[in-house]
Amino acid sequence: MRTTSGWLAGPDDPALRRATLHRRDLRDDDLAVRVEYCGVCHTDLHAPHSPRDTALVPGHEFTGVVTATGPAVTRFAPGDPVAVGNIVDSCGTCAMCRRGQENFCAEFPTLTYGGTDRHDGSPTLGAFSREYVVREDFAYRLPEGLDPAAAAPLLCAGITVWEPLRALGAGPGTRVAVAGLGGLGHLAVKLAVALGAETTVISRSAAKAADAKRLGARDLLLSTDPQQLAAARDRFDVVLDTIAVPHDLGPYLRLVALDGTLSQVGHLGSLTVEAMDLLVGRKKLTSAGSGGRTETAAMLEFCARHGVAADVEVVPSAQVNEVLDRLSRNDVRYRFVLDLADLDA
Amino acid sequence: MRTTSGWLAGPDDPALRRATLHRRDLRDDDLAVRVEYCGVCHTDLHAPHSPRDTALVPGHEFTGVVTATGPAVTRFAPGDPVAVGNIVDSCGTCAMCRRGQENFCAEFPTLTYGGTDRHDGSPTLGAFSREYVVREDFAYRLPEGLDPAAAAPLLCAGITVWEPLRALGAGPGTRVAVAGLGGLGHLAVKLAVALGAETTVISRSAAKAADAKRLGARDLLLSTDPQQLAAARDRFDVVLDTIAVPHDLGPYLRLVALDGTLSQVGHLGSLTVEAMDLLVGRKKLTSAGSGGRTETAAMLEFCARHGVAADVEVVPSAQVNEVLDRLSRNDVRYRFVLDLADLDA
Repeated sequence: MRTTSGWLAGPDDPALRRATLHRRDLRDDDLAVRVEYCGVCHTDLHAPHSPRDTALVPGHEFTGVVTATGPAVTRFAPGDPVAVGNIVDSCGTCAMCRRGQENFCAEFPTLTYGGTDRHDGSPTLGAFSREYVVREDFAYRLPEGLDPAAAAPLLCAGITVWEPLRALGAGPGTRVAVAGLGGLGHLAVKLAVALGAETTVISRSAAKAADAKRLGARDLLLSTDPQQLAAARDRFDVVLDTIAVPHDLGPYLRLVALDGTLSQVGHLGSLTVEAMDLLVGRKKLTSAGSGGRTETAAMLEFCARHGVAADVEVVPSAQVNEVLDRLSRNDVRYRFVLDLADLDA
Repeated sequence: MRTTSGWLAGPDDPALRRATLHRRDLRDDDLAVRVEYCGVCHTDLHAPHSPRDTALVPGHEFTGVVTATGPAVTRFAPGDPVAVGNIVDSCGTCAMCRRGQENFCAEFPTLTYGGTDRHDGSPTLGAFSREYVVREDFAYRLPEGLDPAAAAPLLCAGITVWEPLRALGAGPGTRVAVAGLGGLGHLAVKLAVALGAETTVISRSAAKAADAKRLGARDLLLSTDPQQLAAARDRFDVVLDTIAVPHDLGPYLRLVALDGTLSQVGHLGSLTVEAMDLLVGRKKLTSAGSGGRTETAAMLEFCARHGVAADVEVVPSAQVNEVLDRLSRNDVRYRFVLDLADLDA
């Protein structure tokens, strides 16, 4: 076993405390990664509060440097900068895996934390930790030119909005609206703009108009203003709804154009819509989350080429509990990233 | 005013009784149509039971013969066979109308019955009646070769399934499943097959396997058999759900392929899905109903070319209450059509 340290929530306590962690010895196709930066996702906020009987280490969007490789590893060597997202293994043989959509693996992919290793049955512990051990197939080379701290959130927030934007054809000649300007939303705006779409932010806060412009959006639509909503009826080919709490989808569906799509990526759970809100305009409702290996690699290359990364507030990992508290109050623009170097002390 | 007769439900009584009806005098762009055949839709079953303070005449999928024309009518002459569906007017100027999607008119289209005429404010009375007066723009020439009785249901049931099949790209190389083999479902199967899609029926009744084959389907998937459902996971590009009562959409979404769509056309009201059932496979939920002028005309031409029409049970209109009772028990294969000629007696 390998020994490292990280931030762990015990079975009965959501607070994260520093602890010594064990990682598996490298298997043939494993990398050991020194975690440098790990983004903080809403999932990391909720997971410590979920009922469970094991300890939990959050963290599933990180960048770092390879420190050791198993004997069968061919694509990486010690010193290589890498990035890892929220899935670290899959069956590799089902139709979805064969299409590069390991996130939809028929056997369910192995999650970076809170999952179960497919080979030894151990619980996976996340990257709020100084070291992570991962199969090389689920590590991505971090392209040159991407800042490792600002790139970390691409691996969950970024891919979660990249996949629907790509699948729904966002690009020149399309109109995309991004509802909610937070961790996911601000990356969705940057990616949609870089893809060439005419991009609008939908927010309940007029104060975000300046940020929307700075991120490249054409305008901001105030969701609290019924007149603005009425004037924008049927306007957008894609509405990407990144709002992190359950809410009425009707007003957002009414903004979708004929044969367009509302993709809800902000939270899981039940979604209720009125059939008439779909019927009128043959509008579609979908959801997205995470991504497969093919699109994750493509997104990283795209981001390096277009200079897209997250707007981050980088904090020493020892402040993780304060960070989670601020995240719960939406007090972040736009993504917290933990710097794990303080775990060396 | 013009005088005709039809089957009317009073404000406090869902039973249909024969009554004398009045139609407007022809406006410049109106046709008078002698109604020959009118299909019986689920809407006709429910509408008489809905709370209302006016009399109601159901019927919104019919064929007949032009008997008189207003002076500005250019496309029709007395003697022409025509078909009319469930909308008879729209604003004509909104973006949806300009795209030939009058069914999605921003001012809401005028319904064939239970609506309000846009010009004189009178309530519209449906085609369970010997005569209907309609703007020529909302009448369609009935193509040669289509049986007028079997064609009548195309104007509501047919177009309701045609529009989503077309919009979702049903054709050679695509796999379509039709859930529910009733009035909508049997037309969906015929149309999907004629469009070239590999077509499967999903039904809870194995007894419908023979009919599924006769209609051109490749096979029947038994919705009560978990093994069959599991084996068909992620199989269909399009699942057209024509089941007329609320039901769990999850099992049907799981049959949809990556980036495919479940179109629910069987009933209105609220639809609830689990975000995960959409997320895994980026599946889409949509709905459809009725159609615009462009696609209605295209569908009629297509049906004439491919010999597609409804399987109908034609009954004298005097049996309308018995017909509605049988429809409420799904005792029909697959669409009742009223023959209105008995109203001449």
